[in-house]
Amino acid sequence: MIAMKTLSQMGEQATIRSLMKFLQAGDDIVVGAGDDCAVVRPAGNLPFDILLTSDPVIEGTHFTETDSPWKVGHKAVGRVLSDIAAMGGTPDWALINLVAPLRTPVSRVEEAYKGASRNALKYRMKIIGGDLSRGPVFEMHVFAVGRVPRGAAVLRSGAKPGDIIFVTGSLGYSRKSKHLLFAPRLQEGIWLRKSGMVTSMTDISDGLACDIRNIAEMSKTGARLEADSIPVSEQTASGRSTALNHALYDGEDFELLFTVPASKRDFFIRRWTTIFKLRCTPVGVITPHRGRIECRMPNGRITAVNKRGFAHFE
Amino acid sequence: MIAMKTLSQMGEQATIRSLMKFLQAGDDIVVGAGDDCAVVRPAGNLPFDILLTSDPVIEGTHFTETDSPWKVGHKAVGRVLSDIAAMGGTPDWALINLVAPLRTPVSRVEEAYKGASRNALKYRMKIIGGDLSRGPVFEMHVFAVGRVPRGAAVLRSGAKPGDIIFVTGSLGYSRKSKHLLFAPRLQEGIWLRKSGMVTSMTDISDGLACDIRNIAEMSKTGARLEADSIPVSEQTASGRSTALNHALYDGEDFELLFTVPASKRDFFIRRWTTIFKLRCTPVGVITPHRGRIECRMPNGRITAVNKRGFAHFE
Repeated sequence: MIAMKTLSQMGEQATIRSLMKFLQAGDDIVVGAGDDCAVVRPAGNLPFDILLTSDPVIEGTHFTETDSPWKVGHKAVGRVLSDIAAMGGTPDWALINLVAPLRTPVSRVEEAYKGASRNALKYRMKIIGGDLSRGPVFEMHVFAVGRVPRGAAVLRSGAKPGDIIFVTGSLGYSRKSKHLLFAPRLQEGIWLRKSGMVTSMTDISDGLACDIRNIAEMSKTGARLEADSIPVSEQTASGRSTALNHALYDGEDFELLFTVPASKRDFFIRRWTTIFKLRCTPVGVITPHRGRIECRMPNGRITAVNKRGFAHFE
Repeated sequence: MIAMKTLSQMGEQATIRSLMKFLQAGDDIVVGAGDDCAVVRPAGNLPFDILLTSDPVIEGTHFTETDSPWKVGHKAVGRVLSDIAAMGGTPDWALINLVAPLRTPVSRVEEAYKGASRNALKYRMKIIGGDLSRGPVFEMHVFAVGRVPRGAAVLRSGAKPGDIIFVTGSLGYSRKSKHLLFAPRLQEGIWLRKSGMVTSMTDISDGLACDIRNIAEMSKTGARLEADSIPVSEQTASGRSTALNHALYDGEDFELLFTVPASKRDFFIRRWTTIFKLRCTPVGVITPHRGRIECRMPNGRITAVNKRGFAHFE
């Protein structure tokens, strides 16, 4: 008898890789799976490419039953907005599939829609439809369509050895505080694309350690983080080492993580500082050691970063 | 204390209506909620409009735990293809959000993807990404993008009093047989649009009684069905009256339901018959009695059709 591996045993990343073979490619697909959004190019001479992305928020996985439904809706929309930001794109439209048990108060559904709608409007994305179905727990699946000038989407795959790694904002402890109400970095993402200085970009959804690995894998490089440089959200009584751990491995910061050639580093920082109040911090460098993610610790030792941060099935 | 209505008490249609106020309109939105797909028009002079639609299949709601995962994936994709067919459109791309418990065998997920991929390829839709998350039961949410020549989408709202109501195929008993493996009527939908003879169209997802009501409501008309004309899938020992009931109220036939001006009725039938083997049957007429759906029964009596067919929350 052949043992049947479960999702739990196989893990999220390996399962996703095993599903890649069922995905299709084609001339109309600029970027398929593996980036923050898919990028497609319809027939005709459009001045822009279309971005497609979908994210769920599921009770028990992404939020708890006692979380405010308004905030849950806000988060659901925030996740796709963050994906579009990470490509340097502009959001246009969204559909929402809502799932809920029969006993759910209508007011809970309405509040969730209100939170979703509020966040979408703030960034000029229009929620225009979707589906409502019965299921065992409360869920919202948001499907968003955005756009980016033709050929200009900032991908995960463009980092080069020597490029400096930057993050916006500060990292860690998102679950304790902001994960439901984070601000997607759309304005920043568009500016970064327009600057022409950014070689790769993603958002921090699974934790810095995991998301820098995504950039390295797609760019066929490695990365070295500098522990002392990583901006941590909160330094509690448990000290910087704990805070650093949270910054590396917590998910759902939804900050932007991107790379800039070393030659443009100082100019880039000056330009950023004149425009944004949000902090933007160099946290490491892209290396030629394909697939190797390491971190120079405060004691000077360089350690391999093997943990993948927040992953659903592990 | 104010009683809080649940989804079960309020019902699916009323809940959806209460959520409409959170949806946005705009010049770029040709059709928002209330039709089979949303129709959007990006800036620029595109020769086509974009169709957006999303549908879930949820264990316990749309299929059972013992259903073949290949068929479940097949159905998940079939639902969005049927939505696009009902606009006279062509499918382009899809994303899939898959939800499953940790204990799910990877093979079940792979089989579901295989079924989804097979059905998509058959109709030249490309599955290009999505999400994989943990949740209490197996679910697939498919988000699809299609296209239709600019301004040519066939809507639910164009029926006029006197128009003849047609259905493709035969109706009822879908749950017993074809609901997982139905063929979306894409070729037929495109032909119907191109014929220029069709004034309104939808697919039969919730049952003829419910779906003709959608056309009537959106067209601000009524409709009268002729019981004797309705093509039933199966006439069992329980007789035609039971079969008719299934044809009116079962969901998930995924046939096309559309209207043609009475003056073109005979010409339309001749044209259809030269091209398709699939049956196409006149089953009634659009009336001026706004919101009134009625059915002339085999005994000649006209009865009101008030039941809404398959509705998730009732």
